[in-house]
Amino acid sequence: MLHAAEEIAQALGEDAVCYDHDVLEHHGHSDWSTSNSANRAVAVVYPKSTEDVSTIARICHRRNVPMVPFGAGSSVEGSFSQPLSGICIDFSYMDKIVAFHPDDMDVVVQPGLNWVDLNNHIASSGLFAPMDPSPTATVGGMVSTNCSGTNAFRYGTMKDWVLNLTVVLADGTVIKTRRRPRKTSAGYNLTSLFVGAEGTLGIITEATLKLAPIPQSTSVAVVPFPTIHSAAAAATALIRSGIQLAALEIMDEKQMEILNAHGSPTVRKRHWAEQPTLFLKFSGTAEAVQSDVSRVSAIIHDLTQGRAPFHFARTKQEEHDLWAARKESLFTMTSIRPAGFEMWSTDVAVPVSRLAEIIDWSKAECGKLGIFASVIGHVGDGNFHVAMMYDPRDKEQAAAVGRCVHEMMDKALEMEGTVSGEHAIGIGKKACLRDELGEETIGVMRSLKRAVDPKGVMNPGKVFD
Amino acid sequence: MLHAAEEIAQALGEDAVCYDHDVLEHHGHSDWSTSNSANRAVAVVYPKSTEDVSTIARICHRRNVPMVPFGAGSSVEGSFSQPLSGICIDFSYMDKIVAFHPDDMDVVVQPGLNWVDLNNHIASSGLFAPMDPSPTATVGGMVSTNCSGTNAFRYGTMKDWVLNLTVVLADGTVIKTRRRPRKTSAGYNLTSLFVGAEGTLGIITEATLKLAPIPQSTSVAVVPFPTIHSAAAAATALIRSGIQLAALEIMDEKQMEILNAHGSPTVRKRHWAEQPTLFLKFSGTAEAVQSDVSRVSAIIHDLTQGRAPFHFARTKQEEHDLWAARKESLFTMTSIRPAGFEMWSTDVAVPVSRLAEIIDWSKAECGKLGIFASVIGHVGDGNFHVAMMYDPRDKEQAAAVGRCVHEMMDKALEMEGTVSGEHAIGIGKKACLRDELGEETIGVMRSLKRAVDPKGVMNPGKVFD
Repeated sequence: MLHAAEEIAQALGEDAVCYDHDVLEHHGHSDWSTSNSANRAVAVVYPKSTEDVSTIARICHRRNVPMVPFGAGSSVEGSFSQPLSGICIDFSYMDKIVAFHPDDMDVVVQPGLNWVDLNNHIASSGLFAPMDPSPTATVGGMVSTNCSGTNAFRYGTMKDWVLNLTVVLADGTVIKTRRRPRKTSAGYNLTSLFVGAEGTLGIITEATLKLAPIPQSTSVAVVPFPTIHSAAAAATALIRSGIQLAALEIMDEKQMEILNAHGSPTVRKRHWAEQPTLFLKFSGTAEAVQSDVSRVSAIIHDLTQGRAPFHFARTKQEEHDLWAARKESLFTMTSIRPAGFEMWSTDVAVPVSRLAEIIDWSKAECGKLGIFASVIGHVGDGNFHVAMMYDPRDKEQAAAVGRCVHEMMDKALEMEGTVSGEHAIGIGKKACLRDELGEETIGVMRSLKRAVDPKGVMNPGKVFD
Repeated sequence: MLHAAEEIAQALGEDAVCYDHDVLEHHGHSDWSTSNSANRAVAVVYPKSTEDVSTIARICHRRNVPMVPFGAGSSVEGSFSQPLSGICIDFSYMDKIVAFHPDDMDVVVQPGLNWVDLNNHIASSGLFAPMDPSPTATVGGMVSTNCSGTNAFRYGTMKDWVLNLTVVLADGTVIKTRRRPRKTSAGYNLTSLFVGAEGTLGIITEATLKLAPIPQSTSVAVVPFPTIHSAAAAATALIRSGIQLAALEIMDEKQMEILNAHGSPTVRKRHWAEQPTLFLKFSGTAEAVQSDVSRVSAIIHDLTQGRAPFHFARTKQEEHDLWAARKESLFTMTSIRPAGFEMWSTDVAVPVSRLAEIIDWSKAECGKLGIFASVIGHVGDGNFHVAMMYDPRDKEQAAAVGRCVHEMMDKALEMEGTVSGEHAIGIGKKACLRDELGEETIGVMRSLKRAVDPKGVMNPGKVFD
């Protein structure tokens, strides 16, 4: 493997290869994740172009050396870890906007570009890339995990926003999945095959992303409910109403307690009701937003006989402050984590009608463990996250948390759900994916993998074995 | 091949297999299409279940006999033709709604179900399947061609509305691509791989479709423009405004002439301006529609200094009548086709900013041929259709039409477009697809095909060679 790194250094220059222990450590381990592997890459390499990546692939392929792409390192399922060592490919220097076509509403970017930077850069055009995962995320990782976030309720997931991909295959061959029209029915959908494949089929070196017009107007409302069930029932009624909300999120009473106790000064400007709370975002023309706010308020009033106070932002500042509570929730939680404790953050999705039931069930199970656990959900998509804090030195507790997560997956599958709504599979959920899809469907995935990567050098050990 | 048919008859009963000449002819040829092949299947078989299809596949696979799925037979690119003969699988008896989950907003259906029937059946729930290809189309064909239609501007294409598929593979193995949550990032996106694969990777026997709420309110407007260019410029301005139109269509002056001369009585209630005309559909809450109509009217007024008269429907009846003009256009055209003439209907898509240019170019080229040609476009997606009427007995004319279609494809590719926006590839556009994607990208598709269908028995001769 070291020979491969040396050959890469010869081809791309000494600067393009790093063996530093701390750098390898940073690229092989995440504090945010419980899915880490013991091994590390032998070197981190820094390509500057598709041609560089192709060169790296040719060298690694010839020498049978694993290649592991690295974006922001914010995966919580270990998608970038290196269980079989190999070469880690860091896209920090491939973070450019290659071409921006405002009239076609698309943008061609490199995989190392951060989505917040992208949106800041193009904001004056009135367009934006609507996916909103972790603010640290880069396009390559977003594509490779089929990410989403709070905007998914309105805008779908990453697969819906990728027009084409330039991909370096295992042997260094460069392909483009398709051209740049907004719609096509020409040939197999290779774009969607590489989206969500976690770098196991090829390395993404360029992506053309569809953009959406920035809504003229937005607003935010929060509504506390007596129970998770009543909140979820209200959410279902809102979805069925046909009102096009921009986001529909849920936070449980534990999350709301944390906001009051440990939120940022912005968030603590108000005292939050410590109850399961829906966060709603509205967007559209000014008239549409006004009309949606009053219709939603009426639906919730009717459903709850006026017992769920509907509070909507009266100013832009208040809108920002209310939504900040939702956006900061994960950071607030990690900031209060006791020294030595770990956080197991997991993610499942079920058909919308079953969401209240599985959230209730999950909260009851976590309750039995006597640990801190809270729920944040993209309720509009039937997708939710549970974060559990535990002491890994307490082997019994750690094992119980692992079992609880597993049972949650099983429960989601019983409900025809999925073991991963937006965090992908990585190394953490391979067994669960087999439970979800069955050996025959995994068998088809395995055949496809073998067809494009017969040597198994592309991000090995991920998704399935 | 006849042995395979006989073995299928033994397994599924004599009624399940048909050798009738007229039936074979009907299943192997389309008057709507210029992409027909000379061969016919040896038999048409009629499965009633996924198990039946699996049995058929096992028999054909063992005997190396091609399998060609047949839906409504409305493909214009010959997707269901049988260039290598084989067994044609007709899904007429697999046309059931298997399960309807209104609370999850999805429905599980068999491939032979017609989408208009589906929508009529579930209308009282307030939900609908939003793709609107030819009213004859069935779900299997819609999925297999990644269809769309006028609703694509708002709702995307078929791939965005398929949650999972049950697929019978070449050897009879049955897989389900995934479960039923609205979002997932678990494993490879097999669903999107089978969507648009035209039955070359497997046979779809069940599909779970996402549904959308029927908009509370709709309206329609028509706006004639002096030139295609000014109409396309207005369309671009509307797209960029962020107003969420339900559809944005264009018809050229030839189409409008036909409406006046040969439209149905409904359409001929009014005299249409014989100019390039935008057809706009609005949908949403009543307030949103009202506000959108007045904003769109203002944008068009500003752009054209009031020279493009904006006419919107004042009643439901008028709304229906205006939209009927768009929906009937293709049928009106085929009804006036002289005896013995053929119609070559083709379909390309380009980045939106290039649409006016390619429509202008196409009209000029067709004009040189001295034949009747007209343009209908899904302008909101950069996708348009050209229909040319010609006399196939006039070999020179037929060859010239063929050359013209080819040049149109080349032009679309020069503009980074696609050779097929929504009609798929079939047998008619294989060479163009190679031009579009290049040998290496087609090579990946070929590897995937070989991985799941090593004997090449699934709808052979389609998409690529």
